[in-house]
Amino acid sequence: MKINALQIITLVYFFIWSLSASAQQTQSIKKDNVQLKFRLDDQGSPRYSVLFKDRDVIKESQLGFSIDTDSSFYKDFHLVSVEQRQADGTWQPVWGEEKNIRNNYEELTIHLKHKNGKLLTIIFRAFADGLGFKYEFPKQSSLKYFVVKEELTEFNLAGDHTAFWIPGDFDSNEYRYTTGKLSAIDNRPVVAAATDIAVKTVPDPFAVQTPLMMKSADGLYINIHEAALLNYPAMQLHVNKTNYQLSARLVPDTYNNKAYLHAPAQTPWRTVLVSDKAADILASRTILNLNEPSKAENTSWIKPMKFVGVWWEYQTGKSTWSYSDYADSTDSKKQLIPNGRHGANTANVNRYIDFAAANGMQGVLVEGWNTGWEDWFGNWKENVFDFVTPYPDFDVNAITSYAKQKGISMIMHNETSGSATNYERQLDTAFRFMNQFGYPSVKTGYVGKIIPRGEYHDGQWMVNHYERVLQKGMQHRVTIDAHEPPRPTGLHRTYPNFMASEAGRGNEYNAFSTGSAPEHETILPFTRLMGGPMDYTPGIFKLRNYADGAPGRQMHSTLAKQLALYVTIYSPVQMVADLPENYEAKPDAFQFIKDVAVDWDDTKIIEAEPGDYITIARKEKQKPNWFIGAVTDEHSRTATVPLNFLDKNLVYIATIYRDATDANWKNNPEAYTIETFRVDASNLLKIKLAEGGGAAISIRPINMSDDLKKIRKYK
Amino acid sequence: MKINALQIITLVYFFIWSLSASAQQTQSIKKDNVQLKFRLDDQGSPRYSVLFKDRDVIKESQLGFSIDTDSSFYKDFHLVSVEQRQADGTWQPVWGEEKNIRNNYEELTIHLKHKNGKLLTIIFRAFADGLGFKYEFPKQSSLKYFVVKEELTEFNLAGDHTAFWIPGDFDSNEYRYTTGKLSAIDNRPVVAAATDIAVKTVPDPFAVQTPLMMKSADGLYINIHEAALLNYPAMQLHVNKTNYQLSARLVPDTYNNKAYLHAPAQTPWRTVLVSDKAADILASRTILNLNEPSKAENTSWIKPMKFVGVWWEYQTGKSTWSYSDYADSTDSKKQLIPNGRHGANTANVNRYIDFAAANGMQGVLVEGWNTGWEDWFGNWKENVFDFVTPYPDFDVNAITSYAKQKGISMIMHNETSGSATNYERQLDTAFRFMNQFGYPSVKTGYVGKIIPRGEYHDGQWMVNHYERVLQKGMQHRVTIDAHEPPRPTGLHRTYPNFMASEAGRGNEYNAFSTGSAPEHETILPFTRLMGGPMDYTPGIFKLRNYADGAPGRQMHSTLAKQLALYVTIYSPVQMVADLPENYEAKPDAFQFIKDVAVDWDDTKIIEAEPGDYITIARKEKQKPNWFIGAVTDEHSRTATVPLNFLDKNLVYIATIYRDATDANWKNNPEAYTIETFRVDASNLLKIKLAEGGGAAISIRPINMSDDLKKIRKYK
Repeated sequence: MKINALQIITLVYFFIWSLSASAQQTQSIKKDNVQLKFRLDDQGSPRYSVLFKDRDVIKESQLGFSIDTDSSFYKDFHLVSVEQRQADGTWQPVWGEEKNIRNNYEELTIHLKHKNGKLLTIIFRAFADGLGFKYEFPKQSSLKYFVVKEELTEFNLAGDHTAFWIPGDFDSNEYRYTTGKLSAIDNRPVVAAATDIAVKTVPDPFAVQTPLMMKSADGLYINIHEAALLNYPAMQLHVNKTNYQLSARLVPDTYNNKAYLHAPAQTPWRTVLVSDKAADILASRTILNLNEPSKAENTSWIKPMKFVGVWWEYQTGKSTWSYSDYADSTDSKKQLIPNGRHGANTANVNRYIDFAAANGMQGVLVEGWNTGWEDWFGNWKENVFDFVTPYPDFDVNAITSYAKQKGISMIMHNETSGSATNYERQLDTAFRFMNQFGYPSVKTGYVGKIIPRGEYHDGQWMVNHYERVLQKGMQHRVTIDAHEPPRPTGLHRTYPNFMASEAGRGNEYNAFSTGSAPEHETILPFTRLMGGPMDYTPGIFKLRNYADGAPGRQMHSTLAKQLALYVTIYSPVQMVADLPENYEAKPDAFQFIKDVAVDWDDTKIIEAEPGDYITIARKEKQKPNWFIGAVTDEHSRTATVPLNFLDKNLVYIATIYRDATDANWKNNPEAYTIETFRVDASNLLKIKLAEGGGAAISIRPINMSDDLKKIRKYK
Repeated sequence: MKINALQIITLVYFFIWSLSASAQQTQSIKKDNVQLKFRLDDQGSPRYSVLFKDRDVIKESQLGFSIDTDSSFYKDFHLVSVEQRQADGTWQPVWGEEKNIRNNYEELTIHLKHKNGKLLTIIFRAFADGLGFKYEFPKQSSLKYFVVKEELTEFNLAGDHTAFWIPGDFDSNEYRYTTGKLSAIDNRPVVAAATDIAVKTVPDPFAVQTPLMMKSADGLYINIHEAALLNYPAMQLHVNKTNYQLSARLVPDTYNNKAYLHAPAQTPWRTVLVSDKAADILASRTILNLNEPSKAENTSWIKPMKFVGVWWEYQTGKSTWSYSDYADSTDSKKQLIPNGRHGANTANVNRYIDFAAANGMQGVLVEGWNTGWEDWFGNWKENVFDFVTPYPDFDVNAITSYAKQKGISMIMHNETSGSATNYERQLDTAFRFMNQFGYPSVKTGYVGKIIPRGEYHDGQWMVNHYERVLQKGMQHRVTIDAHEPPRPTGLHRTYPNFMASEAGRGNEYNAFSTGSAPEHETILPFTRLMGGPMDYTPGIFKLRNYADGAPGRQMHSTLAKQLALYVTIYSPVQMVADLPENYEAKPDAFQFIKDVAVDWDDTKIIEAEPGDYITIARKEKQKPNWFIGAVTDEHSRTATVPLNFLDKNLVYIATIYRDATDANWKNNPEAYTIETFRVDASNLLKIKLAEGGGAAISIRPINMSDDLKKIRKYK
């Protein structure tokens, strides 16, 4: 399937002006309710503003740079020319939330010339749900190689909005969210409290990460992020708490340089999504649209899947990644002495393969299979893992053969412990190993301080590293699920083998720390997920008394909510994260996980309010089945789901997995009720969600000749 | 040939004391005239001193460290035990200045325990010509991973010696030498004047590089350096100008960390060579002896050689490395437009192959063969070269085939422009390419600021990089000639594929800058060459009017001195650096270069005084021929060479290539005289060297039945 060929963009009109005499004239484009204005001010400084239904979203704000050869590359410009065009088209993602994605925008291109002769181009695209803009440094004689010392982009907000934020950390996105006014942002207590995060680098107390979700007092939902982060550092935002001005802060290297560029070059797109309906933010495909089309010529090897894994038993302390307890624990032949609790042993792995095969899962992930785990973390050690040497109790040949026999895809695990130089040295060898043993997919990990020392997880060098791994995956037909990378920016459009990433606070924090608040999953889709799928690892069924040696620990969720997450937290690769025995204890609830799809023809955001609730319905790819997930925060509420998206000519069976009447996340999380109804497009479902609860619904059409009458009609 | 097996060390005696009660007792070992004393002072601080013939060489000096978990890891020690042993043996290098190298020393091992429980071991070895000592961090529970913040080793000199020094630069060893008192050292003017060095990092005005050669007022020659620099940064020396105390300064990373270690670990050996004869310093094999035996099991692929190359024509501006003049110089098909002056074209390369084959050279180096040279330097650019893509006019298949037909080994060139990360990513591919096309050898280059950004050429990370390249060369049977690495420390014993390195100011500076003083080559063997062979690129015949557009430029040497350098500057790979046409113009003088050997059975340092003169005689490997080189500084002098090293039963023909009577480096550098004599072991040669001049002599035995009487007897 050639994806690129399917994107048909219609160019409607195209202007070029020579405008040297009209520098201060305001240029403007508008798409539906979204308007962009641009002008050069009296200093020759480029400035833009954004309106939604004529209300200020971004008040006039600065654009520009400080570069190594010119610290004032933000003023003294004049306008060379302006182009305007309109585009409309539809493209089909390799996998995704919809079968078709419409890309419809007005574009304004501003060609500027600095008084010192250097050229700068700014391209704006207005969409119905927001704005994207990027800078281009054209090929030119007066600017070849240069260093971005700082990007001076600003976002002047119109008020003291409520923000859903995490600290602007160069190395981690794994914080709890804080909800509060812009004027109250101070990340220091948050950082200090985050003792569960391994590596933290937060030099600016008033910097926050993007995607930054906000809500204005008058009901506007605003989301600031970026698209197509390539060869550039991640952008974070410094908050001026008195005037609500946000300033770009790029993740630096050790020299406080931000990006080493070679013209022609460009920045990622800066995105401002806006609507008066929160659901529109979740439904936006603007970030994806601002990414380049797929580079994959053949995509038959890229397969969404559900998978189980030898993993949660490590997180909960039942078994260990490592084979011995200490690297020094060796016998007289210098062989490691086994601790007897190593999870990735052949028998246990085969047990997971059996479970996956018996329950229609496609994959099995195994962590802790390769040597080095005795001594892998916290020492800034360069050569930790070699990615090809199994522990003695992990029989890679036998496991490969057994998995093949059972039709299961094994998922490789490459933990780098942050040592990217070591991984890059081994990359060819590691990917050849995957090809040799038929591993179609790899989960990468970057837990630890980065090597090269002096670089950060989210700086330009590492951004390029992650892209190199994606490219290597394309060459070797290996899909990637990256843990601890920068938060995504829609690159899975360009690299459809980039199935998912962590880059946020996953379900695992409930295993090894005090976890996340019940509202966490109502914020994630508005923040972390804006740029791409998250490997959140939902589906925990044993919600209390799972953590070895920590009896007080519990999930901040009901069981029904764990099911709902398969729909509300989008990913084409979904882990079925709990232990097989915990699913086997509740086969009726497990049926939803067995049934739920991971790839979709359509998605409807039914209800959404950041921090409060989200209800989403999705139609299974190339099938008539629908799946609905509803989640709430710490408050009980009723999810209301009109089924008008169903085919009016069909009758369906809906299976509703909901919180039991007396369920709540804190005291009775595992109580659930399963009900089956006959439904059609005229129905309106009303489902009670417990405190910290949720609901999951599967809907499939039935043939009227079946014993339909046995099934109750809903309501 | 198994090298390791040939080293027979005789251990003569062995003590262990338990000495907790005798902490302040001085330990001592002595080898011939060299004495080492060690004690713990009242603070429990380890201190050592070195004497030569009972004269102070190193007055009592501190030992120890500041590490991340303990800034005072230099005091509060007590003595746990002491071991003493003696070793004697002889080993055979794969290639070298002698067939047999004797390794004969007294060893003292001091086991210390810090009051906080950490263990530290110091091992001293006293040789007849000096001392080596290193630190070991034994495997222990209280010290696993740690960071060396600073090594606190000191060398308290006994007086204001005359030093031959270059600045302590983290990135370059390519300075002119300065001769002067320790009390006068200030590297700032030297650094400021060195506008011909591409990348300089010299934060300490009073730091100098090792090997540091010194001469005391009372005639002691002292050389301080290190041996076996592995997994540790290079050591430079901070000079206290008032008390002549030298302190170790390790090359840092961006965090000012020096070394990331994991016990058991060790430092390189710190070496102090001393004699009252300068020639003993040059004859010393102590640095080699302190390196580990060869790791090569089979060494048949490691071959010393002379080689020509497409190179000097670049240095002198006759042709270019690059195919186009600018990276932007492309035609409508985006192909580079040739500048018409690209040196590495097939016809020109074949001309060098012809010349090499016709004159008994074994190799041809070609630089500028691969794409990227339009834009390779000065931009801190990560992805410059891919090491496998030739320019369109370099037909790698045709050249490979032609060289094979002519019996010539092609020498690969891998310039990294300092981007070690990029090179490491490509290393497998690059070495497979060499294997595929039969290149047995590679010249690597590191011109530019290092990537990973934050690392320096001579820091621990890069030291490990260079070792990785050596290891990769061992796997692929490729020999290495590294340009711009740290100055060598005898590692070619361990890695016999490490044929040579630059790591100093080579002959090339005479091509592209104002060059080096005539004394330069009388200092290099006492400094840069102490640790290993240098690819100095001698043999320039056209000594004036060679530099395109720089008519005033000239070599600071006579032609006869250029010949002498093949003997005085030791390397198993010697470039025959000038253009073929310049050799063809002087076939009589070129005969010496054709004849001179590159691998030796024996070496005699006949005369030597740093900064003034050096005369060396060497016996060709497995042949009865001898070659002698004599060089002087800017002063004319007479080299005196007793031939008592010749076989007393043989008669020889000596061909003397000397400066013409009216020659001098400045005004008449190319005037030379060639004379042939009959000589034997009873002769004493006296040869006049011009200002900046030299002499080269080849001596081969003749059969008395030849027309011997036609040959004049010397004197």
